[in-house]
Amino acid sequence: MRRIYFDHIAATPLHPDVLEAMQPYMTEYFGNPQSLHSFGQDTAQALEEAREKVAALINAEAEEIYFTSSGSESNNFALKGMALAQRSKGNHIVLSSIEHQSILHSAKVLEKNGFKVTQIPVDKYGVVHPEDIGKAITGDTVLVSVMWANGEVGTIEPVKALAEVCREKGVPCHTDAVDAAGIIPVDVKDSGVDALSLAGNQFYGPLGTAALYLKKGTRCLPFIDGGIQENGKRAGAENIAGIVGMGKAAEIARDELSSRMKNVRPLRDRLIQCLTQKVDHVILTGHPETRLPHHASFCVEYVEGEAMLLNLDMKGIAAASGSACTSRALKASHVLLAMGIDHATAQGSLVFSLIESNTSEDVDYLCDVFPEIIDRLRQMSPLYPKQ
Amino acid sequence: MRRIYFDHIAATPLHPDVLEAMQPYMTEYFGNPQSLHSFGQDTAQALEEAREKVAALINAEAEEIYFTSSGSESNNFALKGMALAQRSKGNHIVLSSIEHQSILHSAKVLEKNGFKVTQIPVDKYGVVHPEDIGKAITGDTVLVSVMWANGEVGTIEPVKALAEVCREKGVPCHTDAVDAAGIIPVDVKDSGVDALSLAGNQFYGPLGTAALYLKKGTRCLPFIDGGIQENGKRAGAENIAGIVGMGKAAEIARDELSSRMKNVRPLRDRLIQCLTQKVDHVILTGHPETRLPHHASFCVEYVEGEAMLLNLDMKGIAAASGSACTSRALKASHVLLAMGIDHATAQGSLVFSLIESNTSEDVDYLCDVFPEIIDRLRQMSPLYPKQ
Repeated sequence: MRRIYFDHIAATPLHPDVLEAMQPYMTEYFGNPQSLHSFGQDTAQALEEAREKVAALINAEAEEIYFTSSGSESNNFALKGMALAQRSKGNHIVLSSIEHQSILHSAKVLEKNGFKVTQIPVDKYGVVHPEDIGKAITGDTVLVSVMWANGEVGTIEPVKALAEVCREKGVPCHTDAVDAAGIIPVDVKDSGVDALSLAGNQFYGPLGTAALYLKKGTRCLPFIDGGIQENGKRAGAENIAGIVGMGKAAEIARDELSSRMKNVRPLRDRLIQCLTQKVDHVILTGHPETRLPHHASFCVEYVEGEAMLLNLDMKGIAAASGSACTSRALKASHVLLAMGIDHATAQGSLVFSLIESNTSEDVDYLCDVFPEIIDRLRQMSPLYPKQ
Repeated sequence: MRRIYFDHIAATPLHPDVLEAMQPYMTEYFGNPQSLHSFGQDTAQALEEAREKVAALINAEAEEIYFTSSGSESNNFALKGMALAQRSKGNHIVLSSIEHQSILHSAKVLEKNGFKVTQIPVDKYGVVHPEDIGKAITGDTVLVSVMWANGEVGTIEPVKALAEVCREKGVPCHTDAVDAAGIIPVDVKDSGVDALSLAGNQFYGPLGTAALYLKKGTRCLPFIDGGIQENGKRAGAENIAGIVGMGKAAEIARDELSSRMKNVRPLRDRLIQCLTQKVDHVILTGHPETRLPHHASFCVEYVEGEAMLLNLDMKGIAAASGSACTSRALKASHVLLAMGIDHATAQGSLVFSLIESNTSEDVDYLCDVFPEIIDRLRQMSPLYPKQ
């Protein structure tokens, strides 16, 4: 059976050049980079080269990059580390209501430790408005965290304007760019953020690789306490092969970002056009223009997301119904609810995110099988208005 | 130049069968195991198979294994998670004074959060005595953490007796088995511990892979908050290739543990005998018998550890002067100081830890070059008593 992968946001395949770059670090070079002997020096050098490549992808300095094991770890690191480092200055943090669970749950833990959390609403497109952030900031606010782009609905947030509001008020600003870095241009200097999370498996790097950018001078407590690794901020023997892979993936992404965007956008537009025209009651979610170029998300009324995924899977098509981190929880997405979509409609969430190797034939195949799948599911739905 | 690796405790090379097991998860299988489609199912199954293999290595149940990214992460997870989960019951934790920095530093963070920490002394061999643990436990004690074996001096602790004291007093017990699991027999049921840290890169698995064992019913807060991964205790997309590799490495270690121990012990004994006989003022550190079979550690008087490492490295020999996690800090080891070794002697720490592929020729080569290196360094030392 034909198998088509439309689930970039959950994971990307490893780029062959990335795997090639990793191979020597899974065979001949295995030393611990903290060791003082030559086996350690080989990997220590590879570690710093990877750091430079990841820094270059987001226009940071190498020493501002802290490697972690996942976007979720980076988000925990930033939110808890930055909030707790500034506890003496205040106990208030500001988030958007559509953040990833790793931000929202970290905030809940901070609430149990005496912090107050304000969640900023979004508009119907999932956009956070800078003036709302400005209004929420008080004299006690020590951190603002708003994502660069939302993986469930594709909307790109006005991060530069948000960061400017924070800077005016003197409050450090973190952005979860896990679904943006390596996919669209992300520039820490231009955007003016103080901290940024990114993950290697979002741009054809290995699973288990990610990083936190911390602008020089940004206060943040260590996340994993112990050793001297990552400038004392993240103990633990470094995942050298993975980090080398993330570095290579960052280098390739930097080179190919424009062409990837240029190639994937028309395919994505064709997918959106086709699904919304061929099937009724299919609503595009997220912003119609200011969205990730590979991302098409919908609410399909009168059908449940899980049923659609399973039926698409039987046709060989891999898609998502929201974040992979909550996929098996089968709850209506907090993102869609925050955008004002009602509970029943939110259950029909469907996300297609395209990878580099997708073709127009892939999209055509989806367009062919989709109406029939939805039709069948709706016939079983007691809620669907019969004609 | 001949290159000989005697630094098992810092990192081990990847077993070729481990790399082979990982390869499909770096090429054809790349789905996020939380995804509901077939790409996700492929990796979800691999994840659970690896979990079973890691569990089998330490005689645990698969659902008691939580994958992490390093031994240090597992230690942070256990110490902070178990202490904070029981905060309402008490605020006292008991450690040995020779724990790894990831335990000691986690304890420091807990101290800042209202916990009291008692560090139990060790004897001159680095052994923690169960009666000392018993005496230290109060009505407020919620956690005891003592390592299974010490990577700097090789001493194996009486974990079963320690765990029994804890059980009698009704206090949960964690053990850092990073330098033991996969090297010597480690059985969670027989030992009676409630939680145990282990790391894949200690038994020919990949860097960046580790796990925490939590006995069913053991209370522990999540370490990385967010997604539903690892039973809600550790958010973040799983490092599938790495985890598959750790699983395979665990399977091989379980099969080969006895033969590896049997092969390495005589080499190690020969190394100890040779170095202590050929050079004066070389003191074996740690317990002479109850020690890791691949581990030989010394204090070489009138010489600094770093200088020895660099000179050995120039001869192609990789060794350590303590934990890789503090190697570049160049402080006297807290482990040696806790054993009553004076500051000056502790500076001459030298650790050889053998890997599977080491041969008697490797040991002979070390024995040949060692006296000359030490002699040269001592001639430069103002402290060395001239003849």
